[in-house]
Amino acid sequence: MAAYVPGEQPKVAGLIKLNTNENPYPPSPKALEALRAAIDGKLRLYPDPSAGALRQKLGKIYGFELDQIVIGNGCDDILNLCVRAFCGECEKLAYFSPSYSLYPVLASIQGATQVELTLDDDFQIKAHPPLLAKLDGVKLVFITQPNAPSGVWLQRVEIQRVIKEIDAVVVIDEAYVDFAVDNCLDLAREYDNVIVARSFSKSFSFAGMRVGWAAGPSELIGALDKVKDSYNVSRLSQLGAEATLDDWDYYQQNAKKICATRDRVTMALVKLGFFVYPSQTNFVFARPPAPVAAKQWFEALRERNILVRWWDADRIRDFARISIGTDEEMEKFLGQTTVILSEAKNLSR
Amino acid sequence: MAAYVPGEQPKVAGLIKLNTNENPYPPSPKALEALRAAIDGKLRLYPDPSAGALRQKLGKIYGFELDQIVIGNGCDDILNLCVRAFCGECEKLAYFSPSYSLYPVLASIQGATQVELTLDDDFQIKAHPPLLAKLDGVKLVFITQPNAPSGVWLQRVEIQRVIKEIDAVVVIDEAYVDFAVDNCLDLAREYDNVIVARSFSKSFSFAGMRVGWAAGPSELIGALDKVKDSYNVSRLSQLGAEATLDDWDYYQQNAKKICATRDRVTMALVKLGFFVYPSQTNFVFARPPAPVAAKQWFEALRERNILVRWWDADRIRDFARISIGTDEEMEKFLGQTTVILSEAKNLSR
Repeated sequence: MAAYVPGEQPKVAGLIKLNTNENPYPPSPKALEALRAAIDGKLRLYPDPSAGALRQKLGKIYGFELDQIVIGNGCDDILNLCVRAFCGECEKLAYFSPSYSLYPVLASIQGATQVELTLDDDFQIKAHPPLLAKLDGVKLVFITQPNAPSGVWLQRVEIQRVIKEIDAVVVIDEAYVDFAVDNCLDLAREYDNVIVARSFSKSFSFAGMRVGWAAGPSELIGALDKVKDSYNVSRLSQLGAEATLDDWDYYQQNAKKICATRDRVTMALVKLGFFVYPSQTNFVFARPPAPVAAKQWFEALRERNILVRWWDADRIRDFARISIGTDEEMEKFLGQTTVILSEAKNLSR
Repeated sequence: MAAYVPGEQPKVAGLIKLNTNENPYPPSPKALEALRAAIDGKLRLYPDPSAGALRQKLGKIYGFELDQIVIGNGCDDILNLCVRAFCGECEKLAYFSPSYSLYPVLASIQGATQVELTLDDDFQIKAHPPLLAKLDGVKLVFITQPNAPSGVWLQRVEIQRVIKEIDAVVVIDEAYVDFAVDNCLDLAREYDNVIVARSFSKSFSFAGMRVGWAAGPSELIGALDKVKDSYNVSRLSQLGAEATLDDWDYYQQNAKKICATRDRVTMALVKLGFFVYPSQTNFVFARPPAPVAAKQWFEALRERNILVRWWDADRIRDFARISIGTDEEMEKFLGQTTVILSEAKNLSR
């Protein structure tokens, strides 16, 4: 069994880190202050196993009842709990390819049978009969919305077709959704087989604190609650997430800024001859123009202390994924990319 | 499937909370200061997935190589990972009864076949042929050392017999071992099928931070590492645990104080007519004298704002488990217990 390979977390001074989709802006000063104020003797006590206060806040903001929300130790914990609760050993688990590479790893840990569904050439779901036939007997389906690593928004109508046509739990993994123009929370309210998974790691600048959550019908959420570790989220992580939600505008503005930077970077790359998928996330997925190969670009950036992500895998090895950093970081990234392209062109003359 | 039922975490002012074995003393001022200093913009970044710095410190202190240690989101995470790694669906998982009630829950989540082994009347393992026969074909065995909820130290020779006689991974759950006169880390060094699991929640006053770890042969630890969530421990939890280990003496002194209080409480209860198991943990397991039933004692304490733990389960329903608090808290507990006993005696006259 192959383990999941997370992006590197190197400790190199001056490194521009655009490889694991972290938010370039810090958590809100108010959230940090609330955390600081909570560093006291009470850390000797167990956290609230049900994270009641946090669930209450989330429910109020997003429109769910308390028993329709569960908190995870990061969104990855939520995804793992979904596998544990809804897909037994040797049962079928489906996911789309390419998407988040953790899904097949979780399936493999569970001993589930993996059903890999292919996204079309635009990285879209086409819920036509041959695809639906492959979903026969499947217990659990993961859909990444917006998709990763392409960054594209998946057509709602195709997702809905999958939801309606099959007798399985559909988990819509919305880790990046705060950088998109839409979301699918309404589907988790409308259908009894849909769960939406969310993260505090991206738009809420809290990757270091490990908080994720899921919303959906109380029966499904209750099943997740039953298999979760009682004390899966620390006192500070719960409290930090609560304080985060109290400073909503700060994070909204950061998300807007990131989207604006993303759109500028996309245009600049297109101008340089790259093919870039239209991103609804905090990263772009870009294919360099000939004669530069993606791997070569990735390595040349790395030599220049700029870390992006590249996978040696079918359908995506011609691309690199670049997390959106600050404007200053992205200027450096674009500047170095321009140099790399022109050096390669000179060499190939 | 029945979910694990954690002890209550009520928010009642003035409550004396002796029900979930938390340390009555706060984390060290140095550890809290280190945490405070780490509350900054870096929380936007993912934690070190391998918790390298923390593993290094643990290895140095306890005498293990880096690849012989894995970090968990609390010791419960470690126990869950052991089930995931070593016991497939329908395979046999064994544990002793009575002991930590999480084991059968984890087995049930995994769909493993549960083999419940009975401790003898002194809550000791007797590794005689009938017990060893029951272990035939078992993949994973949990041993709580010292035992919970009885608090007793299990005979090493019996544990060793289990380890040597069977072809299974033996996990020695040493959550409470820092309150004991011995430990079994040497067995994790000596045998290729032994893992020792540890917690920062009890002796290190860090239940709110969720840090546990396991040590053992690199092959077994590697298997746990493969199934663990990449980012299972937050930046602050890793850093807080590191700072904890830097203030070793503070925690040693607290543990000594707790043991001294425990022994005084034991003597006082014995004087009042209780039967108390000789505890090597930070709690005592005590049976009240007639005419007082354990449930009645538990409820009467509760009415007096003192929370202890009682289970309505075979072999243990005549006992209550009392976590050791501060001297002041335990004086109040003993005072109220004396009142409860004499009121019951007056009533029964």
